[in-house]
Amino acid sequence: MRPGHIQLRVMDMEEALKHYRDLIGLIEVNRDNQGRVYLKGWTEVDKYSLILTESDTPGMDFMGFKVLNEEVLNNLQQALVKYGCEVSELHAGDLEGCGRRVRFVAPTGHTFELYAEKEQTGKWGISDVNPDAWPLDLTGMKAERFDHCLLFGPDVKATHKLFTEVLGFDLAEQVVDPEGNLAAAFMSVGMKAHDIAFVECPEPNKLHHLSFLLETWENLLKAADLLTMTNTTKDIGPTRHGLTHGKTIYFFDPSGNRNEVFAGGDYHYPDHPAVTWKAEDLGKAIFYHELEIHENYLSVLT
Amino acid sequence: MRPGHIQLRVMDMEEALKHYRDLIGLIEVNRDNQGRVYLKGWTEVDKYSLILTESDTPGMDFMGFKVLNEEVLNNLQQALVKYGCEVSELHAGDLEGCGRRVRFVAPTGHTFELYAEKEQTGKWGISDVNPDAWPLDLTGMKAERFDHCLLFGPDVKATHKLFTEVLGFDLAEQVVDPEGNLAAAFMSVGMKAHDIAFVECPEPNKLHHLSFLLETWENLLKAADLLTMTNTTKDIGPTRHGLTHGKTIYFFDPSGNRNEVFAGGDYHYPDHPAVTWKAEDLGKAIFYHELEIHENYLSVLT
Amino acid sequence: MRPGHIQLRVMDMEEALKHYRDLIGLIEVNRDNQGRVYLKGWTEVDKYSLILTESDTPGMDFMGFKVLNEEVLNNLQQALVKYGCEVSELHAGDLEGCGRRVRFVAPTGHTFELYAEKEQTGKWGISDVNPDAWPLDLTGMKAERFDHCLLFGPDVKATHKLFTEVLGFDLAEQVVDPEGNLAAAFMSVGMKAHDIAFVECPEPNKLHHLSFLLETWENLLKAADLLTMTNTTKDIGPTRHGLTHGKTIYFFDPSGNRNEVFAGGDYHYPDHPAVTWKAEDLGKAIFYHELEIHENYLSVLT
Amino acid sequence: MRPGHIQLRVMDMEEALKHYRDLIGLIEVNRDNQGRVYLKGWTEVDKYSLILTESDTPGMDFMGFKVLNEEVLNNLQQALVKYGCEVSELHAGDLEGCGRRVRFVAPTGHTFELYAEKEQTGKWGISDVNPDAWPLDLTGMKAERFDHCLLFGPDVKATHKLFTEVLGFDLAEQVVDPEGNLAAAFMSVGMKAHDIAFVECPEPNKLHHLSFLLETWENLLKAADLLTMTNTTKDIGPTRHGLTHGKTIYFFDPSGNRNEVFAGGDYHYPDHPAVTWKAEDLGKAIFYHELEIHENYLSVLT
Repeated sequence: MRPGHIQLRVMDMEEALKHYRDLIGLIEVNRDNQGRVYLKGWTEVDKYSLILTESDTPGMDFMGFKVLNEEVLNNLQQALVKYGCEVSELHAGDLEGCGRRVRFVAPTGHTFELYAEKEQTGKWGISDVNPDAWPLDLTGMKAERFDHCLLFGPDVKATHKLFTEVLGFDLAEQVVDPEGNLAAAFMSVGMKAHDIAFVECPEPNKLHHLSFLLETWENLLKAADLLTMTNTTKDIGPTRHGLTHGKTIYFFDPSGNRNEVFAGGDYHYPDHPAVTWKAEDLGKAIFYHELEIHENYLSVLT
Repeated sequence: MRPGHIQLRVMDMEEALKHYRDLIGLIEVNRDNQGRVYLKGWTEVDKYSLILTESDTPGMDFMGFKVLNEEVLNNLQQALVKYGCEVSELHAGDLEGCGRRVRFVAPTGHTFELYAEKEQTGKWGISDVNPDAWPLDLTGMKAERFDHCLLFGPDVKATHKLFTEVLGFDLAEQVVDPEGNLAAAFMSVGMKAHDIAFVECPEPNKLHHLSFLLETWENLLKAADLLTMTNTTKDIGPTRHGLTHGKTIYFFDPSGNRNEVFAGGDYHYPDHPAVTWKAEDLGKAIFYHELEIHENYLSVLT
Repeated sequence: MRPGHIQLRVMDMEEALKHYRDLIGLIEVNRDNQGRVYLKGWTEVDKYSLILTESDTPGMDFMGFKVLNEEVLNNLQQALVKYGCEVSELHAGDLEGCGRRVRFVAPTGHTFELYAEKEQTGKWGISDVNPDAWPLDLTGMKAERFDHCLLFGPDVKATHKLFTEVLGFDLAEQVVDPEGNLAAAFMSVGMKAHDIAFVECPEPNKLHHLSFLLETWENLLKAADLLTMTNTTKDIGPTRHGLTHGKTIYFFDPSGNRNEVFAGGDYHYPDHPAVTWKAEDLGKAIFYHELEIHENYLSVLT
Repeated sequence: MRPGHIQLRVMDMEEALKHYRDLIGLIEVNRDNQGRVYLKGWTEVDKYSLILTESDTPGMDFMGFKVLNEEVLNNLQQALVKYGCEVSELHAGDLEGCGRRVRFVAPTGHTFELYAEKEQTGKWGISDVNPDAWPLDLTGMKAERFDHCLLFGPDVKATHKLFTEVLGFDLAEQVVDPEGNLAAAFMSVGMKAHDIAFVECPEPNKLHHLSFLLETWENLLKAADLLTMTNTTKDIGPTRHGLTHGKTIYFFDPSGNRNEVFAGGDYHYPDHPAVTWKAEDLGKAIFYHELEIHENYLSVLT
């Protein structure tokens, strides 16, 4: 159904909260007895979508997708096993208010999980009945939701096959090299241009960025202003992607995890043919205005 | 899967084309030997979504939804019959490039159809490979797509039941009167705040408006300017809806059909509880800034 | 040089502060021993521009223009006397931090004053050196500055003559009736489309509205949302004016004084011929999208 | 009163017209018997503001300022002579529809001229009476006006003195090095953040860029898209300047002249103290989001 959560390693929790809560504007909703902090964007109906956990290294522990119900979860679990994935299961409640989770590792080396249940606390700061247009007490960039991740790792082709044939994702956009190989796959499980994206890379299990939705191009300008005002390290932007045509800024959290805030972007339906970008035009595909990729772009965390 | 097309009656085709093609900015893609003209928004991958047909009266002939494939079409056809609907079938090709259509009439009196196949000509004016962000030769309001209809008729409750239980729609937002009756139902079959909406009204088969998506609130300003520059009759806006929180303008085509252009609005997932608006606050629900409904709002065509 | 301040009567100071400070987002800078409260928009370099004073009736006490220096003030004072105006003088310090003020009454019955000195506290919330783009702690509509007033009264023709021939204003836009009479005059003493505007009306000394600048059309949308969220009485908008082409919302403070927040609008240079609107098209001139004036528009306070 | 025109050298007129007319969206208004082409932005009331002349080298021939009337022109001419400038005079009509021009060379090596008269053809594409908000037939970036130049040359201090003490300009913003020297001067003769700017540089008479005003930040996004679609060489942006806080894109015409399109920016009044930026923070002063100056920035044409 959709990206439901990501567990992210940060090296200093208080610094991370200044970043994700005060600057990006996520809502802190809970802390657990392992010291993990749960946050979400204000438009998200479920209780949380970002789980911060303190660690010696940055990076992504796992990303979870919410499925429609327990029946779908059972079916997908069986399908994963049948497909040959090593599948494990986590108990309900290990994550606050989250049902049992079915976990597997993709060929790119990233850990994913599926779950059907999570406590719903409603959109933050507005009423369920006659809801106002937005809440008054948002801070910083006023991020609307955790939206997607871009991950780097080997064998994007096999990972694409797993996500489309087993999990019901759809290939919305792709980068293809001159030999016809899949260099990058942007996949959607709804109408968004992408819910998860992979770029081919020899090293497994790399997080390129996690992305949060802002409302408009004007919000991106204010977000870039805030990066300067808060001495936050920017990577690039405001600019536009070729792929998905979304407007974007990349920057880093205090631990070195790359973040994106973006607005807009194309929509996708499952009968739409995948949009193709040529690997030899990758600069335009990634940064539509710059037409080239800065050397720092491909740096991902160990 | 999504709203696929609407056949609309207009009283003068050339006037209608000045309106829908030159002002709203739809692309004229074809005319058939019945004199019907086929148009679409530039982001739509299928060949067309608006079919204009000349008539003595304005109004909607039918609205069609595209389903994923022939298997889904067969299943839905059988489910409609089983549910007790009178179902008819139209041959492939009756509409240019469209496969067979399964037609039924909802309790509100409106004619709908389902189909699985339509010729795909791709987004208009941009390439399939390395596509640019937008085409250079758009006119007028540069409408992106036909998005949804709001229809008036009796027995919204039964129509809601038909769309959710048989056709797989989800109730995204609702207006409920003090007795708990469903006065209006906004339903989605994807992530949009609504793909079809119904408002309770004693007279059957009324079209309140058909709606086209624009990109931004700034485009709505330019659209309102264009209404003035072209002496087009405006109904209301630019303003915001309470329901869906979309930004909107209502206006009329030369035959008296009400149009909407809108931007933004909430997103919906099937696990989200329906957003509820109280019928006694209908003014705020419909026009979030005006807080009241002008008397003209409820006028719909015979 | 520019509109420098307005003294406005409000009937309940705390209610007024919730409105002008918390909702419109002006900065409260001081209170004096008469109970007056001084405020300003954050981009204004001088200490304040809005003076609220408690009274039994709403309305404007006076509006002041800042001139370049004492020499200009002396020259204008003499020119006013020579022109036949009754001129009075107020001591420096009667308004906090403001130099001596030269006061006169225009033929429309409004009281104006000129002054050359006012304490400069700099833009609010940003540094004088390496200033950031905007301050972090703004509230509500984040109004940038007090911009202009629209005043109603008799003999706009004579008032126009006084402002242009004696005070150095320029007629930027005008409304002319079929007999060639000046029905409204929009005058500028800088590059703005208007610093002061007058509309012909039999009753003297009426305030139609005082206006504050917002940055963008998107800020106007948020401002309209805030009116709804705070149960503030809106008059009209978001819409566009024909005159000046500015984007606008009209609403009321708790005492009944009409406010405007606006963005954009044409620029003016003294060699530009005045833009002319026909009085018979006054609807379009005032509200470019609505094309007509609602009956409430002409209501001004006693 | 304001920047009135610039004569710019281009190496291929037809290529230049594709750039300035079709891409930037200036209006071509005339050609003269020397082969010069006259253009302007649609909001400009005077007949033209950009004069293109074919040459073997790119660069600026001269920049002209319009003064209020012949009396002011005479006074400024005498003041320039008295100040010790070498002043020459060009006949009325040498430039189409332009009155006599008083020419001088600034210490930075640039040629400037003053004039009081130019034919006024009104804003392009809209009526003088009841003018619409904008004309329908604009192309490309829809530039509103020629706005200012940034020039590089030696002795900015002396040039600043000449412009402020003799010509009535005001220092709006400045860059000051640790020794207190003036490294850059942004000067205004109206309410704009700058009408002319100088940066200290050993080589005289260099054009850094000429700048055109766009309406909004959203127009800048579309402008950046157009640069990509038309294979035009971009320098940087969309981003924001620290100095003036305007939003900006830099790019090059086919001859190598740097252009800017920008939107927004601070306003200035003559009683405002100059805003100061520290030379050691020049990166932030120039590019507020990037915080550093790319090496190409300082390249200016020979």
